[in-house]
Amino acid sequence: MKFSRLSMALNAPKRRYSTMTSSVIGNLDCQKTMMENGAKKWGFEGQTWLKATSAITVRGVLDMLMGGLNKEDSRPVIPLGHGDPSHFPSFRTAAVAENAIIDSLRSAKYNCYSPTVGVSSARGAIADYLSRGLPYTLSPDDVYLTIGCTQAIEITLAVLARPGANILLPRPGYPYYEACAANNGLEVRHFDLLPEKEWAVDLSAVETLADENTVAMVIINPGNPCGNVFSYEHLKEVAETARDLGVLLIGDEAYDNLAFGSTPYVPVRAFGSIVPVLTLGSISKRWIVPGWRLGWLVTSDPNGILRKSGVVESITGFLNISSDPATFIQAAVPQILSDTKEDFFSKIICMLRESADMCYNGVKEIPCITCPKKAEGSMSVMVKLNLSMLEDINDDIEFCVKLAEEESVIVLPGVAVGLKNWLRITFAVETSILEEGLARMKVFCQRHAKKHQVGFTD
Amino acid sequence: MKFSRLSMALNAPKRRYSTMTSSVIGNLDCQKTMMENGAKKWGFEGQTWLKATSAITVRGVLDMLMGGLNKEDSRPVIPLGHGDPSHFPSFRTAAVAENAIIDSLRSAKYNCYSPTVGVSSARGAIADYLSRGLPYTLSPDDVYLTIGCTQAIEITLAVLARPGANILLPRPGYPYYEACAANNGLEVRHFDLLPEKEWAVDLSAVETLADENTVAMVIINPGNPCGNVFSYEHLKEVAETARDLGVLLIGDEAYDNLAFGSTPYVPVRAFGSIVPVLTLGSISKRWIVPGWRLGWLVTSDPNGILRKSGVVESITGFLNISSDPATFIQAAVPQILSDTKEDFFSKIICMLRESADMCYNGVKEIPCITCPKKAEGSMSVMVKLNLSMLEDINDDIEFCVKLAEEESVIVLPGVAVGLKNWLRITFAVETSILEEGLARMKVFCQRHAKKHQVGFTD
Repeated sequence: MKFSRLSMALNAPKRRYSTMTSSVIGNLDCQKTMMENGAKKWGFEGQTWLKATSAITVRGVLDMLMGGLNKEDSRPVIPLGHGDPSHFPSFRTAAVAENAIIDSLRSAKYNCYSPTVGVSSARGAIADYLSRGLPYTLSPDDVYLTIGCTQAIEITLAVLARPGANILLPRPGYPYYEACAANNGLEVRHFDLLPEKEWAVDLSAVETLADENTVAMVIINPGNPCGNVFSYEHLKEVAETARDLGVLLIGDEAYDNLAFGSTPYVPVRAFGSIVPVLTLGSISKRWIVPGWRLGWLVTSDPNGILRKSGVVESITGFLNISSDPATFIQAAVPQILSDTKEDFFSKIICMLRESADMCYNGVKEIPCITCPKKAEGSMSVMVKLNLSMLEDINDDIEFCVKLAEEESVIVLPGVAVGLKNWLRITFAVETSILEEGLARMKVFCQRHAKKHQVGFTD
Repeated sequence: MKFSRLSMALNAPKRRYSTMTSSVIGNLDCQKTMMENGAKKWGFEGQTWLKATSAITVRGVLDMLMGGLNKEDSRPVIPLGHGDPSHFPSFRTAAVAENAIIDSLRSAKYNCYSPTVGVSSARGAIADYLSRGLPYTLSPDDVYLTIGCTQAIEITLAVLARPGANILLPRPGYPYYEACAANNGLEVRHFDLLPEKEWAVDLSAVETLADENTVAMVIINPGNPCGNVFSYEHLKEVAETARDLGVLLIGDEAYDNLAFGSTPYVPVRAFGSIVPVLTLGSISKRWIVPGWRLGWLVTSDPNGILRKSGVVESITGFLNISSDPATFIQAAVPQILSDTKEDFFSKIICMLRESADMCYNGVKEIPCITCPKKAEGSMSVMVKLNLSMLEDINDDIEFCVKLAEEESVIVLPGVAVGLKNWLRITFAVETSILEEGLARMKVFCQRHAKKHQVGFTD
């Protein structure tokens, strides 16, 4: 049964080395079976810990939900699970960005391997782009091109891992951090984002969690999955706390500039003078081109602490033995950054604001779901499931599995981002689709509501 | 001094965990210095093992040689070190390949994230392409899209690693395997390719090296760095040896179809019925587009052993937590494979054949260098340095460093691919450039020849 498979997977062991014993047992069983079949005793096997990875990525969980859709349902699937609106006509990227790629390709100058740190013109253009509004200036040498923000996360955690080290991650958060931490043997300690305080960081918890083996703390701003935007004052407090604890600050700005509420967007690197910051970002979200796989890892550290501590040298070392983004896409970056007009960005911001409003208002109409804070940024929002109002649904996974099966609506169970019995709704879709999705969710909740419940009288 | 830096780097520790002790000591020193400066005691540091990676990649070694070029030399640099001829006009990729990318991009259907295993149409097209001439048919499900052949290597070694396991690698070989093995804690055991036997595998050594912890054996065909092409009969022997030892065969076919001598190219996967094969390949070399970062990992295993042993599940698990090639490049693959005409391939083959001949004949004119076997495939050849004929050059690194400094010619020292006091010459350049490079090498060798030596009378 789909439901139990997903539940099991989400509780599967995530550590590379903790699963070794069961892996060896599995191998012996496998070899025995093969020998009974008269085949060779092979000396190789797959790694058990790798097999459970689909449980620890958003994509893996969504794939499982998609697998449970009812093929008899003739209505279109409503995808409110995944932060990738690129296939909706309203969210098509800027024509100038496409043109920049084509010019780069047609030049035939960028079919070659790229330097391991990235194409030099792109590093310079990104340094300029990310220096805007900063109290200090980034140098091209601060910028490393990566395969989307994903690889920037991978590199960062590989560079910081050492035996016994731990990292502070937000809860709810982005589970790719947990996957990379496990892959590098880095212990994870979670601090809460507080829904009753507009998803602010629980700073007193951070101080309690950190010790002499804490290497870094991750801040995702604008927030994924919460849709919050951290204020200047709060980020300054976070930076001061990190400095006092002696930990690096990782500013995950995958959704940079996608802020449409009353709180202005301030990048974490604005506080690089207080504490060294690694900025992780990409063109994926702002330009709606996640499939182009173009991101960056930027040392945002005017005091040069990352260089002194060997972090910079380890980053370049890791890049020597890892893959690069396509060279002609890298080489298009200066033109993409310079030619994209403000009206493209403002159109996207308007659409996201409208969708965030519609989502907040739509959720208000569904008694078994509560949204503590309307989204002000990114492409998703967290809403709380009131299970006591539902008759035959016991947790968020069951809710999402049944919602997919019965209504062909895909929503991410909160447990996948660290918050059990919440849901992550991605509102970055065409408004007509969002409207339809919210309507189906309402019907679904009505069908599963406890019969004595008020609020479902219509 | 450049020379000693490169020597040191090539002997640097490569293992992740063996360097932990010195790493901790380094950290304490670093913290002490910072505290004396009145700064914070930071809890993070770079990983020492990552800092030495430039020594264990071809790219890293070439970068160091490039750094030693004499800026006063007004002659153009002759790059005979790197298998990337894409920037030479004669080696420009097929126009239909560029058009396929542009069509894919302009469709706006592939700005999205790709499935973790790759875009389905591309998997199918690659399965068809790689099934040609095979005694069995590959399925689209056998094919996983990767970021060049590089990521295919990375995935393969991560999937096969387990505590105590070892892998058999060719010497000379491609050092990225050693780097990935170190990164995954996989012990490396080298078998020789025998120059006196046209670079055949020393199969008796393979049998001695393997034990119950050997998981796989790597064959690079056409050969990099030797430029050999393995015969059908020899590959069959290799496959039978691997089967008898119970080890997986990894067929690295980065240079697939680039064979231009008397030995026909046979892919390792032709023997998938004898032993399970993982085929690693890409469009980088045959289409001269290494910067497009489009490769594949293909299970070539008609008996389904890789599925039974959990290797397939581990591959998909690894793909869940790793980066993908750009989606629109993946989606262009069917058109690239179907539209590229035979005359493009045959033009490239003719150019490589001509260059390989010129290289072989040019080396014959230089007494201190011997080529045991003219290249029949790939883009490079190994030649032996006769140090006894040289006055003030003690090894291959010193040869290459001085050659770069004095003649602005870049050639890879053999030690970088596992064969000390040999050189790897990449002949895939415009013939006029190759001619000039060989002429400069000859002059260089004359200048450094022992005075009583015969053969330099002109």
